[in-house]
Parts: sequence; structure tokens; C-alpha cells
Amino acid sequence: MTKVTAQLSVSLDGFYAGPRHTGDGHWMESAEAAGFFRVTRWVTDAMAWRERQGFDGGTHDTNSEIVAETFAAAGAYVMGRRMADGGEVPWGEEPPFRAPVFVVTHRPRETLVRGGGTSFTYVTDGLASAVAQARAAAGGKNVAVAGGGSLVRQVLAAGLLDELELHIVPVVLGTGLRLLDADLGLGEKEGIELAQTRVVHSPEVTHVRYAVTGRAPLLLDDRGSGGGPTTTVS
Amino acid sequence: MTKVTAQLSVSLDGFYAGPRHTGDGHWMESAEAAGFFRVTRWVTDAMAWRERQGFDGGTHDTNSEIVAETFAAAGAYVMGRRMADGGEVPWGEEPPFRAPVFVVTHRPRETLVRGGGTSFTYVTDGLASAVAQARAAAGGKNVAVAGGGSLVRQVLAAGLLDELELHIVPVVLGTGLRLLDADLGLGEKEGIELAQTRVVHSPEVTHVRYAVTGRAPLLLDDRGSGGGPTTTVS
Repeated sequence: MTKVTAQLSVSLDGFYAGPRHTGDGHWMESAEAAGFFRVTRWVTDAMAWRERQGFDGGTHDTNSEIVAETFAAAGAYVMGRRMADGGEVPWGEEPPFRAPVFVVTHRPRETLVRGGGTSFTYVTDGLASAVAQARAAAGGKNVAVAGGGSLVRQVLAAGLLDELELHIVPVVLGTGLRLLDADLGLGEKEGIELAQTRVVHSPEVTHVRYAVTGRAPLLLDDRGSGGGPTTTVS
Repeated sequence: MTKVTAQLSVSLDGFYAGPRHTGDGHWMESAEAAGFFRVTRWVTDAMAWRERQGFDGGTHDTNSEIVAETFAAAGAYVMGRRMADGGEVPWGEEPPFRAPVFVVTHRPRETLVRGGGTSFTYVTDGLASAVAQARAAAGGKNVAVAGGGSLVRQVLAAGLLDELELHIVPVVLGTGLRLLDADLGLGEKEGIELAQTRVVHSPEVTHVRYAVTGRAPLLLDDRGSGGGPTTTVS
């Protein structure tokens, strides 16, 4: 059955890139890029990713298997406009997706058909519509929210996400673009509960997959401790 | 050899408690407490923690073993003043530490000796002094930074922390007290690198232990991708 999934590499403090690049200058030289390439280093080193990009080399290991599995599970993608714009030139004539991509945007544009099975369809009537169109195109495989992080967050906030996989990288960035921030719009004493469904780790990264249970109140439940912040393992 | 260690339970978005309780009203009723008890639920359910608190019941499982191991490894503790104040009454005559505790504070106070091996020594000449005093008292075991989170962050920022264990709980809180925030004072394109040394998981929580490598520049290293944000597994 088709699930709506997302996965993102994050630093230990929850950033998927450095602080947003504005102003002049090339994105590659920015602090945003420096953070992005640090947390995705495990991906760019993985053979399965390099093959999709047409690069040589790379390591064949647990990380590479995770990348291959992620590509294989996706029957269609949903993507933010900024990521689609940024990737259009470097992805070239045969982008790595090899599946229909639905881009959430305010700017109408004709569908762009690329080689290898990738197409970009520009959806102007909202996120839910893009997800629905991707679901119809996924052929029973998963709908993967490709990014960027703010789109993943919107899908989660809208209750449309079934599964989230975080690739938690052992670096603290201190600042940058956060996957999970205040935009989630949770109420006081409300959280989003998830259930761990898989934990896999390599020396470079811990991959944790979660099923999204949904919004739930944070009930006071001190399990009988009866006092202040009394735990030492906290 | 004595290491300086810290461990903290955090939500998937990096909070160790809800937003700070300020105004009137009991802490137990606050959103801070609601978040705190959600992320530490795995601890309060663990038999090894309940035993230290004098409570019955609890589960004997991986989580309980982690708690027991954490208590056993600590020869002395360093603690923030707010945590020490908040715990003083509920911890009672036999606090769960059973080791010397060094409290970082601006207010001089005589050492408080409790039963079971716990004492509280109030250190007014700074964090590094408290760590040094704890190291001298640890008898070859580890110095554990007990919390709260802001003290853990200060110890990390000061380069005094050898090992950090995060207990990553599958809930998104949206807001609250963050372990790793902008107070770390990292420079542009600078991070703190860590190395994963152990990953253990139970259904309720993923325990990841890191050795702290230290501050390092985030070198641009796109491994030959040569373009914008081109990865789909990111």
C-alpha cells in the first residue's frame, strides 16, 4: 500500500543545512552549503547515490544500501519549488529520480519531461493536491517527499506524512535550517507522537525510521515520582 | 581513566523539556513538566531508576540496563543550581546519586551531606572548577554532568565534555528547552564533530553515545557533485 514517506539527513542539533543563503555569491560557497554537505556526506560517499548521479566510486556498505532502498521504494516524488529550481541545471537530462516528480509551487509551468523516467509536474493548487497526484502516479509504491526540509515539515504538520526517516549525523552545527521548528504549530502540551520502526547505524550516521502516529496531548504522567525534576538519567 | 560524561533524554526535535516555567503555579502543572515527563518516561518506567528512588515496580529491560549502567559509571556529579534547588526536597534524605555532587552556583552555601553517599558541594568559582573538583572526587570513575540541559551545553561549549549520550525519544514537542542551541557560540562554517561509539535501541527510545571530537571547520566537500542541492536522499 502506498505510504507517504520522507527522509532527511540532520545534524545532532536538527539542522539539514547551514543558515539560509541569501544575498549574492554562489550557493556552493555559502554556510548553508557547508552545513548541507556535512550532513549529507554519508550520501555522497555512497555508491548507490554516485551511480544515480553518474559518478564513479563510492562505498558499498550499509549507507549505500539505505540509499538504494530509498530510491527503490519511491514510485513518485513531491518536491518544493526551491529544491526543484536549484536542481534543474545540475540534475541535467537524466535526473536521479526516474519517476514522476510533483513540484509544489505558485507559478504555473508546463510539465518538464526528462530522460530515464523523470518528469516534473508543477502543482499550483496546494500540497494536498500534489500528494494526491503523486499517490495516483506512484503505481503502488511510496510517495516520497524529496524535500526541502520546509516541505517535509509542512507535510508533517498537515498530517499527511506516514513515515519519517532521519539520518542523524554526529555533528553539531549550532545554527542553520531546522527540519522541526516552531512552524509545526503545535498547541501547548501537545506533541506529535511517532513510533520507531527501524534503527540501523553505520560509523557515520544513525538511521532511525518512524511511523507517524499523530498529534496527541502531553498528559502529565510522572509515573509516581511525585516531585520536581528528580531524575538523574534525564 | 576518568571521563567527563553527560546524557540527556531529548525529543526528536531536540527538547529536553517543554517551554520554561516562569509565572506562578506549580511546576508539575506546567508545559515544561509535561514535555520533561514525556521525554523521560522511559526512565521513570525503568526498574533501575525506580529502585534508586525507592519506588516499586518498573520494567527490567534494555532501558533499565542503560539506567543502571549510567548510575554505576559515575563517581561524582556536576549539576546546575536550578536542578539542585528543584530536587532538594523531592530527593529527600537519601538522594539517588550515592556520590559527591558539585553544584555550579553563584551563592555560597555549606556542603550538604545526605545519606547513602550523596553530598552537595556548592562551587562558586565556575564550571571548570566544579569539573576539576568532581574529577578529584570520582575515584577513577566518570564525572557525570547531571544536568540540567543548559549546564550540559555549557560543558560542551567549554570543550570539557568527553562523551555525550542522547536518549532520542520518538515525539516532536515543537517548542521547549533545547539542549543544543545558539548559545554554543560556534563560528560561521564551524561545527562540533563527534564520533558515534554505541547505538542501542528499545521500542521507546534510541540511545546513541558519542565521543566528542571537538570544534572543526565545515570544509566544503561535495565529493564531486559539482552543483546545487542535488541529492534526493538528503
